[in-house]
Amino acid sequence: MKSIQSTSCQVHFQENAYKQLNNYLANNTHSIIFILVDENTNEHCYPKFIAEMETNATIEVIEIESGEVNKNLDTCTGLWNVLTELGADRKSLMINLGGGVITDMGGFVASCYKRGINFINVPTTLLSMVDASVGGKTGVDLGVLKNQIGMFSDPEMVLIDIDFLKTVTPLEIISGTAEIIKHGLIYDLDLYNDVRNNNLKNVEYLIHRSVEIKNEVVLADQKESSLRKILNYGHTIGHAVESYFLESDHKKTLTHGQAISLGMATEAYISNKLFGFPKELVNDLKSYLIDLFGKVGIEKEDYDAVLDYMKHDKKNVSGQINFVLLEDISKYKIDCKVETELVLESLDFYRN
Amino acid sequence: MKSIQSTSCQVHFQENAYKQLNNYLANNTHSIIFILVDENTNEHCYPKFIAEMETNATIEVIEIESGEVNKNLDTCTGLWNVLTELGADRKSLMINLGGGVITDMGGFVASCYKRGINFINVPTTLLSMVDASVGGKTGVDLGVLKNQIGMFSDPEMVLIDIDFLKTVTPLEIISGTAEIIKHGLIYDLDLYNDVRNNNLKNVEYLIHRSVEIKNEVVLADQKESSLRKILNYGHTIGHAVESYFLESDHKKTLTHGQAISLGMATEAYISNKLFGFPKELVNDLKSYLIDLFGKVGIEKEDYDAVLDYMKHDKKNVSGQINFVLLEDISKYKIDCKVETELVLESLDFYRN
Repeated sequence: MKSIQSTSCQVHFQENAYKQLNNYLANNTHSIIFILVDENTNEHCYPKFIAEMETNATIEVIEIESGEVNKNLDTCTGLWNVLTELGADRKSLMINLGGGVITDMGGFVASCYKRGINFINVPTTLLSMVDASVGGKTGVDLGVLKNQIGMFSDPEMVLIDIDFLKTVTPLEIISGTAEIIKHGLIYDLDLYNDVRNNNLKNVEYLIHRSVEIKNEVVLADQKESSLRKILNYGHTIGHAVESYFLESDHKKTLTHGQAISLGMATEAYISNKLFGFPKELVNDLKSYLIDLFGKVGIEKEDYDAVLDYMKHDKKNVSGQINFVLLEDISKYKIDCKVETELVLESLDFYRN
Repeated sequence: MKSIQSTSCQVHFQENAYKQLNNYLANNTHSIIFILVDENTNEHCYPKFIAEMETNATIEVIEIESGEVNKNLDTCTGLWNVLTELGADRKSLMINLGGGVITDMGGFVASCYKRGINFINVPTTLLSMVDASVGGKTGVDLGVLKNQIGMFSDPEMVLIDIDFLKTVTPLEIISGTAEIIKHGLIYDLDLYNDVRNNNLKNVEYLIHRSVEIKNEVVLADQKESSLRKILNYGHTIGHAVESYFLESDHKKTLTHGQAISLGMATEAYISNKLFGFPKELVNDLKSYLIDLFGKVGIEKEDYDAVLDYMKHDKKNVSGQINFVLLEDISKYKIDCKVETELVLESLDFYRN
């Protein structure tokens, strides 16, 4: 598959990815190469990756515990101390081999260590391949607030090897599908129809096209001031529900995909009410998403808390909650204001 | 005094600084303006500053405890939580009113909050005026390692009001003088002679010329790969001694200026041995610096620890310690290797 040129880095696919990596390593001197993994990618992805990588540099593997719950400043502090102890300097390179937690946090840790060392992202989950590959977002959570602390910083390159998807759980694959569906909804009817009708049969196409779409949007707008906002479709309500379920003692933690599936269904409902997004698409999308992700167990008594989390969305300005809504597939509207009542109505719609 | 155009921001002086600030505030909409202060600047600088500032935006003052010991990730986490609680969003502005701890840490906190909000630096100490004003360095310490975590990020503008120097202690003024002396040594004989012969009589000239010099160096080299290294004169040994004294139970914490005064004297000694920097200048500089800063109480039994700290210098590459040395005033040599024995000899020279 053809490489994709992003802001200041390229995304390479399959066997070409390793070729490009080895070219890069041959042309740049590194004092130490750090490979950041979790226990899963250390066991399942690292052996293939290290076999493909050619370098004479010292390699240090740093393993952290998997899971969003570890994507925080404490883990960063631990990593910065480990880098210090292992003698990382400004000519060190960090390779982040894992899902979104590893690539987001690893990018942040690298970008702040001694005011920045180079890093390469190797996403190993479907979600991180289609969502975290381009855009230069790095960061960690602050308490329950997702990605509250971070910065824009591009990796040297992104390497996508679809082989690694064999190593992740079906649940993770489904979670990543949510972002592909989103990319279709906001930008590309063909992509939407392919994932809707063929599921992941054409996964290489789905990933490549998703990265392409995300990249087009990001290139058009690097600072999330305008076009980039369309990537937030399904995330205004979705993120709030995700944060609430993560923090609540009574709720089971959701995958990102589950949360966004609820967000896409409810925001489609709102899109219909405000902009005439076709009602039959709203209903089809809802049942498709519930089939795929299961139904998120949200109840009326959760509504107040969810609204509260929405108020803390990073994308808010002057306390105003902004939605991305749709007139039709690939016809988006940004900066939409929505009455609280309609948000609650959309949650009722999802539940019934 | 004339404004100085830096990388992506301007440094404004005296009454013009407030004019520029108020223009900026009038032309940009901010949801909330946060003013970061410590207990000293809150009491002594904030009243004048707030009286000069014209805005209708909500203002929130955030006070942190003064001192390098608080320039760490725990304080950052506290600040990020406070910003979250006070509803800071991407249209918020942060004004850092204080010395280097406030401007370095405030810049870092702003640059990582929700992936970056705008900030303005208002240095209130001589050291932060001449050293931290330009260059875009933000950061905090990691344990005893100074500025180990941070990033390059430019403020919207830097405002220098020499009035604020009345509010700081004589010790702090002396500490800032070290950087002026350094700027003279590495770059400008006239500046060196002025501060050497007239002390701070011409403080406006000294500050303006120091900012100009630092800015010229920074513009020539934004990433510390080459020319910027000259700013590290006196800092290779100086920083190590500073870190060691900070951590050691037996040593009194040094001001940055005290540490750098030792660094400049010892590195002048090494410069003489390796590059023929005039011996009479070495001796004059040493006695001048000891007169001004007092003698740093370093002993033979401290040498091993100091060498150890030098090995952790951010500027090292592949474990190699790099010095900036001088052939003469304003004739620098970068990337100099120095034998351990000569470093120890220079410390002996300083002590005797």
